[in-house]
Amino acid sequence: MTKKVLIAGFTGAMGQKVIKLVNSLDDFEIVGGLSPEIKYEPKEYGLSNEVKLFNQRDAIPDQFADIWIDFTTPSAVYENVKYALTHHIAPIVGTTGLTDRQEDELSLISKKEKIGGLIAPNFGMSAVLLMKFAKEAAKYFPDVEIIEMHHADKKDAPSGTALATAKMIAQNRPPHQSAPDEVETLSNVRGGDYQGIKIHSIRLPGYVAHEQVMFGGTGEALTLRQDSFDRQSFMNGVKVALEKIDTLHELVIGLENIL
Amino acid sequence: MTKKVLIAGFTGAMGQKVIKLVNSLDDFEIVGGLSPEIKYEPKEYGLSNEVKLFNQRDAIPDQFADIWIDFTTPSAVYENVKYALTHHIAPIVGTTGLTDRQEDELSLISKKEKIGGLIAPNFGMSAVLLMKFAKEAAKYFPDVEIIEMHHADKKDAPSGTALATAKMIAQNRPPHQSAPDEVETLSNVRGGDYQGIKIHSIRLPGYVAHEQVMFGGTGEALTLRQDSFDRQSFMNGVKVALEKIDTLHELVIGLENIL
Amino acid sequence: MTKKVLIAGFTGAMGQKVIKLVNSLDDFEIVGGLSPEIKYEPKEYGLSNEVKLFNQRDAIPDQFADIWIDFTTPSAVYENVKYALTHHIAPIVGTTGLTDRQEDELSLISKKEKIGGLIAPNFGMSAVLLMKFAKEAAKYFPDVEIIEMHHADKKDAPSGTALATAKMIAQNRPPHQSAPDEVETLSNVRGGDYQGIKIHSIRLPGYVAHEQVMFGGTGEALTLRQDSFDRQSFMNGVKVALEKIDTLHELVIGLENIL
Amino acid sequence: MTKKVLIAGFTGAMGQKVIKLVNSLDDFEIVGGLSPEIKYEPKEYGLSNEVKLFNQRDAIPDQFADIWIDFTTPSAVYENVKYALTHHIAPIVGTTGLTDRQEDELSLISKKEKIGGLIAPNFGMSAVLLMKFAKEAAKYFPDVEIIEMHHADKKDAPSGTALATAKMIAQNRPPHQSAPDEVETLSNVRGGDYQGIKIHSIRLPGYVAHEQVMFGGTGEALTLRQDSFDRQSFMNGVKVALEKIDTLHELVIGLENIL
Repeated sequence: MTKKVLIAGFTGAMGQKVIKLVNSLDDFEIVGGLSPEIKYEPKEYGLSNEVKLFNQRDAIPDQFADIWIDFTTPSAVYENVKYALTHHIAPIVGTTGLTDRQEDELSLISKKEKIGGLIAPNFGMSAVLLMKFAKEAAKYFPDVEIIEMHHADKKDAPSGTALATAKMIAQNRPPHQSAPDEVETLSNVRGGDYQGIKIHSIRLPGYVAHEQVMFGGTGEALTLRQDSFDRQSFMNGVKVALEKIDTLHELVIGLENIL
Repeated sequence: MTKKVLIAGFTGAMGQKVIKLVNSLDDFEIVGGLSPEIKYEPKEYGLSNEVKLFNQRDAIPDQFADIWIDFTTPSAVYENVKYALTHHIAPIVGTTGLTDRQEDELSLISKKEKIGGLIAPNFGMSAVLLMKFAKEAAKYFPDVEIIEMHHADKKDAPSGTALATAKMIAQNRPPHQSAPDEVETLSNVRGGDYQGIKIHSIRLPGYVAHEQVMFGGTGEALTLRQDSFDRQSFMNGVKVALEKIDTLHELVIGLENIL
Repeated sequence: MTKKVLIAGFTGAMGQKVIKLVNSLDDFEIVGGLSPEIKYEPKEYGLSNEVKLFNQRDAIPDQFADIWIDFTTPSAVYENVKYALTHHIAPIVGTTGLTDRQEDELSLISKKEKIGGLIAPNFGMSAVLLMKFAKEAAKYFPDVEIIEMHHADKKDAPSGTALATAKMIAQNRPPHQSAPDEVETLSNVRGGDYQGIKIHSIRLPGYVAHEQVMFGGTGEALTLRQDSFDRQSFMNGVKVALEKIDTLHELVIGLENIL
Repeated sequence: MTKKVLIAGFTGAMGQKVIKLVNSLDDFEIVGGLSPEIKYEPKEYGLSNEVKLFNQRDAIPDQFADIWIDFTTPSAVYENVKYALTHHIAPIVGTTGLTDRQEDELSLISKKEKIGGLIAPNFGMSAVLLMKFAKEAAKYFPDVEIIEMHHADKKDAPSGTALATAKMIAQNRPPHQSAPDEVETLSNVRGGDYQGIKIHSIRLPGYVAHEQVMFGGTGEALTLRQDSFDRQSFMNGVKVALEKIDTLHELVIGLENIL
């Protein structure tokens, strides 16, 4: 049975990629689009003319679609997801900006309304698998360091993915103290420290977004690396979410938790 | 409660490493050693003088130890494991050379005797985790190639680990056909082919034993790599096996299956 | 003193990048553009209104510019470069398709007209330096293998850069025979063979264009790698050519020969 | 004509490796060994019985050998090299510990005595080539960062090779300022800073000694990496030094300066 999909933020760069993705899938059909900035006919956005376009959320009827894909803005996402849940449309959310408290509230609504969904700050499958594997490997290799590489225009360091990876590793590795007596003859060469896990950030032109987790043990090493060349890669994760959304009976945070 | 350990092949290079490992662990105690070539007192082998040395298997009493660690020879291993199981000592086996049929027979004995055990051709944790992760990633990234690198003295190619990895990936990836229309202008540059998975073997002096699994998807890549610098690394896996052996109620083949 | 530049093929993708590059440099000024397909005013192409546009070669006067940058087509390049040389404009040529014989003829013309120039099939600085360094390292490390990685849409293998690298290495390494007695248990895993240098081609979605040269020696390894993410990278090499063109007194083939 | 070689420090680990190397070469012959700790006959040290062993330097006659290879101790090296030069034996020195002032003095002696020689703190060819190539690439890629990886027992950071590489790059790159406005949300993740070149030190069990130099430019990247698995690798560099020592007419510091 074909699932009906509504795309919130369909006019944006990510929304446009989602349209192409869903159009390429057999078991899903776009039935609606939501955006405050609709200027053209559906076909100008890559949509068939039967697709209904909404410029405000409240016009969308209850159970209008099975799935609500959200790539909108930090200011809109909370109300959007709440609306989807209370109107019995399962949300798949790639928009960032939800606070911990908002996530908790949405989880409660999800339980009350008996509808599942997924909130994923990162839909890149390679990054999500890297984090999952790193967490698992840390059980056996407590000695670990992280290197992340980004283009020179990224002014903040470390990357969110690197820090999230360190957090997942820290949860899972046995108590561990590495080399307390080390000496830096050039300050800071040993990098940043998150609960004993060293993080190193590289910023160079040419690079895009890359993360490497290095584990060392007696006589051996294990290295996990992911490269994101293009945000198009997020569609790999959205596809996985679409295939699994049916099996979710609550609001899940993080794509890695449905793999 | 301290577990009692017997080491079969304790005079060999791996056996000697196992002695050091077990001596360093709090919850395990070496109580016996088996080898046809005993020449010296226990302390010459790094053992305390209370440890009993056996130069033939049949002299070992029933339930003499809790765990039988076996790093012996292809010709001895089958009888050793059979003896361990029927005498209610749980085997942890790093010796290679068991046939599929022998493994099946030992499994049956294990069930009958109601005692678990582990047979692991590869105790390198980095290699075992690499294979496990590669299998899992293949679900989401059907496009994959394998590179393995070994010292120039390794005359056969590909390595057993590379081929084993390809087999595990093949079990788990969706039906997949990559580039049927490709053209080699220099023969064989596209490497070996195992069910559509390309394998490339590098042989160079300086290298030891390394494997890299490369996954590619739209706009992203995931790479898993392991380096074995020294067989000392096998002790990481033996340690994991010692910690888990208690929880096994049958004969398990492959360290990855107890992680 | 500011050098005057004419851009042949200024309406194409590479030509447009060249316009941006030259506009950003202090010591160079665009004075003309050549293209058979001129439709708009100069400013539509990112050029100032003083720039003269030509839709045929013969309209360009003798010594009209100091430098002729050529990113045109295989069918036009030979006549273009000949025209430039005989009209005393030093050519910098990124267009591919010249035969060995045509290159020889252009070299003769260059000598007769006493004007230098550069023909470079690859203006990517990272690829050019990789080849140069690989050639040099081969003197000390005769054991070497090459891996090249490209997107899955590249149907031919190996890449031109990988083969060119192997040729340069073959010229420079001492007579060498590696492992004549090796055995493939899976056909072709040892890759392609160019004069004893093994070449391995990887084709995966997500990847762009990458080359890795691996040298091994007793107890050590040296690895050179280049990644091309975008043809924008060619502008790095064009910039180097512009800075050096003045010092060339003959027609040089290959950017590596002016570094 | 066969060259005569004296090995100072022939009883040490490196000296023993030098004996094996020279014995394997056609054009060189060991004629003497110097060590304060001689206990056995020459053949116990892998030497033929004609080789003369000295336990003090002053017993070695003028022009006793053509070449003096020195792997001794920081306290002996200065007097050894001085002795070699004044007795007309060309020194190849792998011993560390000479001060800048001592090197200057030895250079003067070398000129006065009209005999060349080589002092090389690092005889690893992969490290030496890496530094040479990094210096050259910096001319074209001013954006560069360095990662060095060592075993967890190395308590100081960064490694000497990484710092030496940064110094060579700094000499050769154009004036350069990278990202002055970057922000660390976790302190020190951007690593150490040597004249604008970021250095990152990794310390993990399993690793031996590895260095990676990463260059980035618009749309491309160039990476140089060397791995030292074993000090045996130093013999590659000693061999190169033996082949070139004849051509040196002064005291050269650094193997890279004779390549």
